[in-house]
Amino acid sequence: MNIVIFLDFVGITLFAVTGALVASRKQLDVISFIFLAMVTGTGGGTVRDLVLGVPIFWVEQPLFVLICALAAIFTFFTAHLLESRYFWLLWFDAVALAAYAVFGAYKGLLVTDSPVIAIVMGMLTGGLGGVFRDILANEPSVLMRKDIYIVAAMVGGLVYVGSVGAGVDQYVAAGLGFITAFLTRSGALVYGWHMPVYRSRPGRDPKVSLDAARRNKGD
Amino acid sequence: MNIVIFLDFVGITLFAVTGALVASRKQLDVISFIFLAMVTGTGGGTVRDLVLGVPIFWVEQPLFVLICALAAIFTFFTAHLLESRYFWLLWFDAVALAAYAVFGAYKGLLVTDSPVIAIVMGMLTGGLGGVFRDILANEPSVLMRKDIYIVAAMVGGLVYVGSVGAGVDQYVAAGLGFITAFLTRSGALVYGWHMPVYRSRPGRDPKVSLDAARRNKGD
Amino acid sequence: MNIVIFLDFVGITLFAVTGALVASRKQLDVISFIFLAMVTGTGGGTVRDLVLGVPIFWVEQPLFVLICALAAIFTFFTAHLLESRYFWLLWFDAVALAAYAVFGAYKGLLVTDSPVIAIVMGMLTGGLGGVFRDILANEPSVLMRKDIYIVAAMVGGLVYVGSVGAGVDQYVAAGLGFITAFLTRSGALVYGWHMPVYRSRPGRDPKVSLDAARRNKGD
Repeated sequence: MNIVIFLDFVGITLFAVTGALVASRKQLDVISFIFLAMVTGTGGGTVRDLVLGVPIFWVEQPLFVLICALAAIFTFFTAHLLESRYFWLLWFDAVALAAYAVFGAYKGLLVTDSPVIAIVMGMLTGGLGGVFRDILANEPSVLMRKDIYIVAAMVGGLVYVGSVGAGVDQYVAAGLGFITAFLTRSGALVYGWHMPVYRSRPGRDPKVSLDAARRNKGD
Repeated sequence: MNIVIFLDFVGITLFAVTGALVASRKQLDVISFIFLAMVTGTGGGTVRDLVLGVPIFWVEQPLFVLICALAAIFTFFTAHLLESRYFWLLWFDAVALAAYAVFGAYKGLLVTDSPVIAIVMGMLTGGLGGVFRDILANEPSVLMRKDIYIVAAMVGGLVYVGSVGAGVDQYVAAGLGFITAFLTRSGALVYGWHMPVYRSRPGRDPKVSLDAARRNKGD
Repeated sequence: MNIVIFLDFVGITLFAVTGALVASRKQLDVISFIFLAMVTGTGGGTVRDLVLGVPIFWVEQPLFVLICALAAIFTFFTAHLLESRYFWLLWFDAVALAAYAVFGAYKGLLVTDSPVIAIVMGMLTGGLGGVFRDILANEPSVLMRKDIYIVAAMVGGLVYVGSVGAGVDQYVAAGLGFITAFLTRSGALVYGWHMPVYRSRPGRDPKVSLDAARRNKGD
């Protein structure tokens, strides 16, 4: 097993665990744990494979579905042992995001040979699992967080694609991409790193005008 | 017309009706009835066919799109005759869930020959239409319900796949799967059947800590 | 460049701008601007191509991804110059909806030769970008608006397909479809045009009974 395949397993398993942790926070039943774990674990990769026009990885290899189910059942019986489930959810998600973004970029580059598509695939693969998880669980989407998230997936993909382009061995490049993406997201979690956010002109509060607009539309 | 094709029609039509009933509860216009009916009626099967890598059923046979549109228009003009639209929504949804889960498992087994994939396809096909309907209509996702839902789809798929594996005629197996899935969901609707839900340690309320975490993040 | 390709570019670029405008209203960072712009700009077309079973347009031609990214960056630095971002969001969305609905119908007809599928493809392509944008941004879905929206996409597709069927040159038909769709949506924006909405029997308020039902379910 090389590092690329290892990152694939790590990303799927830990994303599945985060799906199950969200289910535990909502006090759902074990089958809902499994469903949320499957959607979170396989969601990003499913869209990636659909968009790339290759067979869906878990239809080719149903083992991945069983891994998600086992991760969910394991979490169902052990989540109460965690001091703070939200803390672990965020950190497992960070590792999975980094691992899966690099694997997405790797697969994107393999199939299309286009650096742009490879980086977008990394963002999609890394980001969409969490997006699906949050939508299904009626949580605010991961995309709306103020701290760095999708950026980390993009950075991981960029480092991987750039390193491969510079002639670095692809397994070394994958390791570099993973470490950079994880450190970037860690900075967000530990130090609250964020990108410059959009600011409207002083004296205008878009939140307020949004709500006003909604009221006017009668929504 | 054999029972498998019959279940396909029943699932699509009744899911379309539930989409239109949600539109009626939101007092939308007739085109929104049609759009919600199409998404609910064809959503699960579309994802199933995409994932299986086969042509989308309603592109092959546009009749299914027309059925959804007709079901929506019929519901638009008759929904007010129902004493309780929510009651009928839940029961139509139960029949559709059972029918479509078995048809999904049937098609999954046909294409991949893998029992695991077949059962997952049943869950996806049965569950996703309702999930899409609820997301589009800003309703709490069907997945967050405490009573048995996805479980019923899984049970239907299991019974179908297990019966076929045991040498039962596939049409008989489809009937058995449908009846089991429907009875399972009926138990949830009538008696409030639910699976054991996750419980955190006594004295901890994850709902509260979730809200607290959200407040801390400023979401 | 003929009018059909022009409509494709217009639809993608303006949808991307609306995604970025939503990001500006939520005060997100520049990468979230890019992500929302990509999802909104390419979302409808991605589903269209998946359903039609043709290669995804932006994997074939990564230039479209770069256009979305540039539109997002441009919006990030200029959105504060707009007097009312919500006003421009609605009008850009109207032009994009009309352009993309006709392009969707064009591509649907090209691939399947079925008028029904072509019109549904127009609705999907025109409507889904905005739906994805609103779901990701936790906004009420575009589908729940009382004024005419999906109808405009349908009308554009109908006029295009009908004109082509009547022997009109396809580029002229595309122009006619675009103008009709845009005028239809404009009527909704300027005069509040809406379709007849569903009305329950007098004395019944479905909104209230919906909330009551939810309370009863404990959601």
